[in-house]
Amino acid sequence: MLLKELRTQVLEANLELVKRGLVLYTFGNASGIDRDKGLVVIKPSGVDYDELIPEFMVVTDLHGKIIDGKLKPSSDLDTHTLLYREFPSIGAVVHTHSEFATSFAQAGLAIPPLGTTHADYFYGPVPCTPPLTDEAIGGRYVHETGLAIVNYFQQNKIDPLAIPACLVNGHAPFCWGKDAHHAAHNAVVLEAVAKMAYNTLTLRSECAGVSQSLLDRHYFRKHGAKATYGQ
Amino acid sequence: MLLKELRTQVLEANLELVKRGLVLYTFGNASGIDRDKGLVVIKPSGVDYDELIPEFMVVTDLHGKIIDGKLKPSSDLDTHTLLYREFPSIGAVVHTHSEFATSFAQAGLAIPPLGTTHADYFYGPVPCTPPLTDEAIGGRYVHETGLAIVNYFQQNKIDPLAIPACLVNGHAPFCWGKDAHHAAHNAVVLEAVAKMAYNTLTLRSECAGVSQSLLDRHYFRKHGAKATYGQ
Amino acid sequence: MLLKELRTQVLEANLELVKRGLVLYTFGNASGIDRDKGLVVIKPSGVDYDELIPEFMVVTDLHGKIIDGKLKPSSDLDTHTLLYREFPSIGAVVHTHSEFATSFAQAGLAIPPLGTTHADYFYGPVPCTPPLTDEAIGGRYVHETGLAIVNYFQQNKIDPLAIPACLVNGHAPFCWGKDAHHAAHNAVVLEAVAKMAYNTLTLRSECAGVSQSLLDRHYFRKHGAKATYGQ
Amino acid sequence: MLLKELRTQVLEANLELVKRGLVLYTFGNASGIDRDKGLVVIKPSGVDYDELIPEFMVVTDLHGKIIDGKLKPSSDLDTHTLLYREFPSIGAVVHTHSEFATSFAQAGLAIPPLGTTHADYFYGPVPCTPPLTDEAIGGRYVHETGLAIVNYFQQNKIDPLAIPACLVNGHAPFCWGKDAHHAAHNAVVLEAVAKMAYNTLTLRSECAGVSQSLLDRHYFRKHGAKATYGQ
Repeated sequence: MLLKELRTQVLEANLELVKRGLVLYTFGNASGIDRDKGLVVIKPSGVDYDELIPEFMVVTDLHGKIIDGKLKPSSDLDTHTLLYREFPSIGAVVHTHSEFATSFAQAGLAIPPLGTTHADYFYGPVPCTPPLTDEAIGGRYVHETGLAIVNYFQQNKIDPLAIPACLVNGHAPFCWGKDAHHAAHNAVVLEAVAKMAYNTLTLRSECAGVSQSLLDRHYFRKHGAKATYGQ
Repeated sequence: MLLKELRTQVLEANLELVKRGLVLYTFGNASGIDRDKGLVVIKPSGVDYDELIPEFMVVTDLHGKIIDGKLKPSSDLDTHTLLYREFPSIGAVVHTHSEFATSFAQAGLAIPPLGTTHADYFYGPVPCTPPLTDEAIGGRYVHETGLAIVNYFQQNKIDPLAIPACLVNGHAPFCWGKDAHHAAHNAVVLEAVAKMAYNTLTLRSECAGVSQSLLDRHYFRKHGAKATYGQ
Repeated sequence: MLLKELRTQVLEANLELVKRGLVLYTFGNASGIDRDKGLVVIKPSGVDYDELIPEFMVVTDLHGKIIDGKLKPSSDLDTHTLLYREFPSIGAVVHTHSEFATSFAQAGLAIPPLGTTHADYFYGPVPCTPPLTDEAIGGRYVHETGLAIVNYFQQNKIDPLAIPACLVNGHAPFCWGKDAHHAAHNAVVLEAVAKMAYNTLTLRSECAGVSQSLLDRHYFRKHGAKATYGQ
Repeated sequence: MLLKELRTQVLEANLELVKRGLVLYTFGNASGIDRDKGLVVIKPSGVDYDELIPEFMVVTDLHGKIIDGKLKPSSDLDTHTLLYREFPSIGAVVHTHSEFATSFAQAGLAIPPLGTTHADYFYGPVPCTPPLTDEAIGGRYVHETGLAIVNYFQQNKIDPLAIPACLVNGHAPFCWGKDAHHAAHNAVVLEAVAKMAYNTLTLRSECAGVSQSLLDRHYFRKHGAKATYGQ
């Protein structure tokens, strides 16, 4: 894949967030990685979405060193690069403050798998990290944000592609996927799933959620060697 | 009716779901049946709604055997065909993951008749099936989903045209009607009714709902030999 | 005013309901009255909003006898005509199943005056009628619906122009105003007020609402001889 | 800056409120100030937003005396001018009845800082004033509304630019900023923050909110000498 093509894919993923109502003003950011070249392409910081063109995307290495681009990269860059370093299977990262997913993050609650819409995309609860310590917040904060996600997934032995999203406590969701298109798609579905989980829990707080067998059935309908969904 | 006409009707019912905000990406599906020919026309699986044309609709027999069409049918086909076999009065089936109806399904709750909007369309609670057993989920799952609906209606002696919708526990609603237009219309109204029921119950959990006489009055205003609504 | 002009005003009021998202499909209806001629102009029953033209509006006398028009009038006609007969100060009536106002009606709850938005338009709680008896429902139901509204206002000595709306228990709101434009405007504001009351009460159920002096200040800022709002 | 330019900026801020769904009909108003000339430019009262042109903006002095303009100024003018007199650092004021911020005002509740979206814009809770006394309501009401805001900020030693918004009890929010663009932007973000706070608190009422260190980190990422966000 040419880097030019990746810039376009990353731009399109950013614009998909706008189209689906997940971002306000300059909130949110999407990035993608070229694993062969070890290069990350990310949205610039604080630029209006309707002014974005592929050339404005910033290119960095896996440690955030700028390789190409005249604009400053997203202020969340260090979270993105850490996720790329620690989750070698992912090809793109998306961060939004989408309303309902962010509300769960603010409540410090994971999004439990309450239905098959969830199970089609997320093979278990979408976790919420523990709050960052004052030390972590006062230190390399953006890096620590990524570390909270990575630690949670590694300590709980979760495959990042099986649950391609995490809520950062008191903050908002980060999502990912095999490429920029899928990462944005996952962010959009996460918001829909979060909204329905909110409705369900406020309607019936003691709701048990789907059984393991229903989770298995729906997740593997869309994922893995035996997937049957689509053409 | 020509099969070509049915393909167009089924396509239009699918697009109505998009227009009314009931589906996201490739979620949801609508089908219709030609009772004389015993043929079912259904949306293909996982194709973007804005790419759909009548020719993409898949034609099967009443047991899901593909008669015409190059694409794979909706993965929910076996639920549709079972409903057609067991509910001989219905002419179309619509499945969505529309937000509020799905939230009731996730909570495992029927939608009670709380007002005349409900009574105009659904002559009693819109039921929610019991959860599927692990055996059913591990077996012919899509067929079992239809069976849970059919069993509920038959055991409770409910006329499928009097309550043209059912929530599948932990999943989402299935709706139907005399033709594709009405099935989609019922799905749209079900979502509006579910949203208002959510608001009502979160505002006043002990809400009693409409009386039998109000249910009768409104339902028979729009249905049956003495209907007075419309031209 | 010419009847032709009234037909246009009534049509525009109906279309305002669509534009503001208060009605779905053919739900809802607006009417207006020419007091000099004693003629009511009302939307026809069950006709799509985008097909409506002024000529389709149905003209009746104050007891619902059709004077002009080839279509059947709205099935809620008898409620409209009763309101015109009993509330001589009103010039138009609007009925919708708008989501949040209907949710209060379904809960059997009045909308309390919780803020100045409410006070700007409604000089006190927007009441909810008691449930209709089975006898009333089984009898002249549409007339009885209007009677429940009229009785409530008369027994509680409420000026219909000071509180230009009422919730019908288990059903939905009826609104009115000095003309069709204002009646539709009141229906739109009622929905906004109902939505904010829902949010407020679910956030803090014991909320006290505005004081009588704040209610007075805001209401009379927009109404009566000392109004200061607008040009 | 020419006064003509300020008129245009104030008009654009008013229109931004419409575009973002914060105002209904003629609700809401925005103003800006030319500190050198001591002149305030404000929206006229009760004029439809789609009829507004820069020339319709009304120019007053800091005590509300009309200097230029044929239309009556917004009925909230006295609140705006008091804020300008008492908060010398602000350059614009915006008032809306936006749904969720107004719902908190109706509940008489401050919006607590529950997440980083809040912390990016508001360095602490967005306060809610105590209810106005009957005397204040019966007196110079619009002036007293501003006084309630000013008193709260001064007694609690809050920098108006650090928390550029306040809820008026039983009424709605007032927001401000260094110029009209930022004041409108703050009003839009306040509504998003209020909506997420509503969701969070109805999901988990005992939610603690962000730590002081997280509040510091996010607020100073976007504000002050060490800000890193944007280009």
